[in-house]
Amino acid sequence: MHSTGITGRQVTERKRETLERLVAERDIWVSTSHPDHGPHQVPLWFLWDGRAVWMCTSAGSATARNVRAEPRVRLALPHTLDVVLIQGEAEGFAEQDVPAEAAEAFTAKFGWDPRTEEGSFVYLRVVPAVVRAWRGEPELNGRLIMRDGAWLD
Amino acid sequence: MHSTGITGRQVTERKRETLERLVAERDIWVSTSHPDHGPHQVPLWFLWDGRAVWMCTSAGSATARNVRAEPRVRLALPHTLDVVLIQGEAEGFAEQDVPAEAAEAFTAKFGWDPRTEEGSFVYLRVVPAVVRAWRGEPELNGRLIMRDGAWLD
Repeated sequence: MHSTGITGRQVTERKRETLERLVAERDIWVSTSHPDHGPHQVPLWFLWDGRAVWMCTSAGSATARNVRAEPRVRLALPHTLDVVLIQGEAEGFAEQDVPAEAAEAFTAKFGWDPRTEEGSFVYLRVVPAVVRAWRGEPELNGRLIMRDGAWLD
Repeated sequence: MHSTGITGRQVTERKRETLERLVAERDIWVSTSHPDHGPHQVPLWFLWDGRAVWMCTSAGSATARNVRAEPRVRLALPHTLDVVLIQGEAEGFAEQDVPAEAAEAFTAKFGWDPRTEEGSFVYLRVVPAVVRAWRGEPELNGRLIMRDGAWLD
């Protein structure tokens, strides 16, 4: 067996556990930016549909405003000792334009349907382009598990 | 007793518990942005010195690069159900310029002295200007607990 120089989980294990957490977790840290307003960060509920992260936020929120001006976003699953960072571009859907399947899965997960709320909401879809996953410094090496939208297994 | 319209903790309690967590917690989510590269988000170790958040990162990291171009940052304590968001500007200190008191307190907290490491590190100091704290939707009202660097108690 030759050494890979990587301590900790191999890429296939990191991918499997990342996908499990994308299904199981409810909250995700959403980092956006705006040329005038700088960075912004907030936790949102999210749904993983097997290919993309779906979130929903008030159309008047800083997150919604920022992604209109700068679609690049960074997402992070909650645990700081079991880090999963996702890089991608956000595509916004008005309530009347969101694919019904995604909206219904979101409502089923959270028991909340933004489409029936007063006020205007926007759904955000982020297809991961780059994913990094590590548990502490010993796993920093080998943390890249998706590049250009392709898993590295 | 007149109603404040706020459900959940009052501002003094949110401030007290936020300060306790700034002392007790080890990790903080750091969101930065760059005009060319967009947003970035990563967890870093931090120290609270009673007035500012101190972090340390490789001088070549995206975080260090970003704050040189755009000093505005957003910080968040880890828990998504006990949210503390901090807004401020990052000031960078090279290892030879960092105030000894801050660097030593950082080393005492983490058992790690970046000044003795190979490679170049930068210390970042963020004095909070705006702080928001809430536990779930019932506490969204009243979440602003610092404005213009002043606690709202």
